[in-house]
Amino acid sequence: MAVQSLEKLLVDELRDLLSAEKQITKALPKMAKAASTEELRAAFEEHLTQTHGQIDRLEQAFEILGHGARAKKCLGMESLIEEGKEFLEEEMEPAVRDAALIAAAQKVEHYEIASYGSARTWAQEVGQPRVADLLQATLDEEAETDRKLSQLAETLVNQRAA
Amino acid sequence: MAVQSLEKLLVDELRDLLSAEKQITKALPKMAKAASTEELRAAFEEHLTQTHGQIDRLEQAFEILGHGARAKKCLGMESLIEEGKEFLEEEMEPAVRDAALIAAAQKVEHYEIASYGSARTWAQEVGQPRVADLLQATLDEEAETDRKLSQLAETLVNQRAA
Repeated sequence: MAVQSLEKLLVDELRDLLSAEKQITKALPKMAKAASTEELRAAFEEHLTQTHGQIDRLEQAFEILGHGARAKKCLGMESLIEEGKEFLEEEMEPAVRDAALIAAAQKVEHYEIASYGSARTWAQEVGQPRVADLLQATLDEEAETDRKLSQLAETLVNQRAA
Repeated sequence: MAVQSLEKLLVDELRDLLSAEKQITKALPKMAKAASTEELRAAFEEHLTQTHGQIDRLEQAFEILGHGARAKKCLGMESLIEEGKEFLEEEMEPAVRDAALIAAAQKVEHYEIASYGSARTWAQEVGQPRVADLLQATLDEEAETDRKLSQLAETLVNQRAA
């Protein structure tokens, strides 16, 4: 009963993440288009490719757990993307807009880092090491994307904006 | 003009964070009350005390920048807290509820880690090292809180739930 409950929590979190990743695949092309530096545009496009692979991993995890890969609308991600969209509508110098785009993307990454981290730990606890490995692989990619964005913010974009 | 724009972005982010912190001070007592282990309750209560200090630091940052400490409703945090609240209303074993509470709190922490990280970098870039130091101090606390919550999830709560 207790194990089943934690497994239910895990499946719910994976549904939330599937929705989050699908929302991200729609947002990233707009963010890439709005970026003014080639490096930032390339970073967003690379992460879009990665995101498709992350959706594949979630689908594998659902299969292992014996559940259909059904998304459950992730309201947290919806708000984070909505906040990011506001920047696209505001008048802004290109370099400042790039700084704002990076900040919005890092909020998205950190939402995922928190969610994949919890889900990975729960998968370990309920005795699903293959699921835990899939989630860890994505978690590593999200953390690496976040580091790259921090580097871009520090070295390139902000110095041009200031 | 460009510097002013990045400084405006910084002030907007601080307003967003002030709203986020204030929302957190209202959510944490409810989360502490819902926690079933003493360690988790204590962690939430300790973080509430910390959050008041973090609000003080934001107010100091506004003063240094010559802006009033006005909050601007943070929709991202509102959604994250809303998602966390749903768990409080669901029927759940106490140990599983603790796991869910930790996951919700870590999403909140990671939102703040992303936001304080961007704001700290911008403060450096616009030549406001004292503001950057204040934001770094809070960023360090948020990262430490996140590490503590991960530890609690791994050692205590999840093993009881499974």
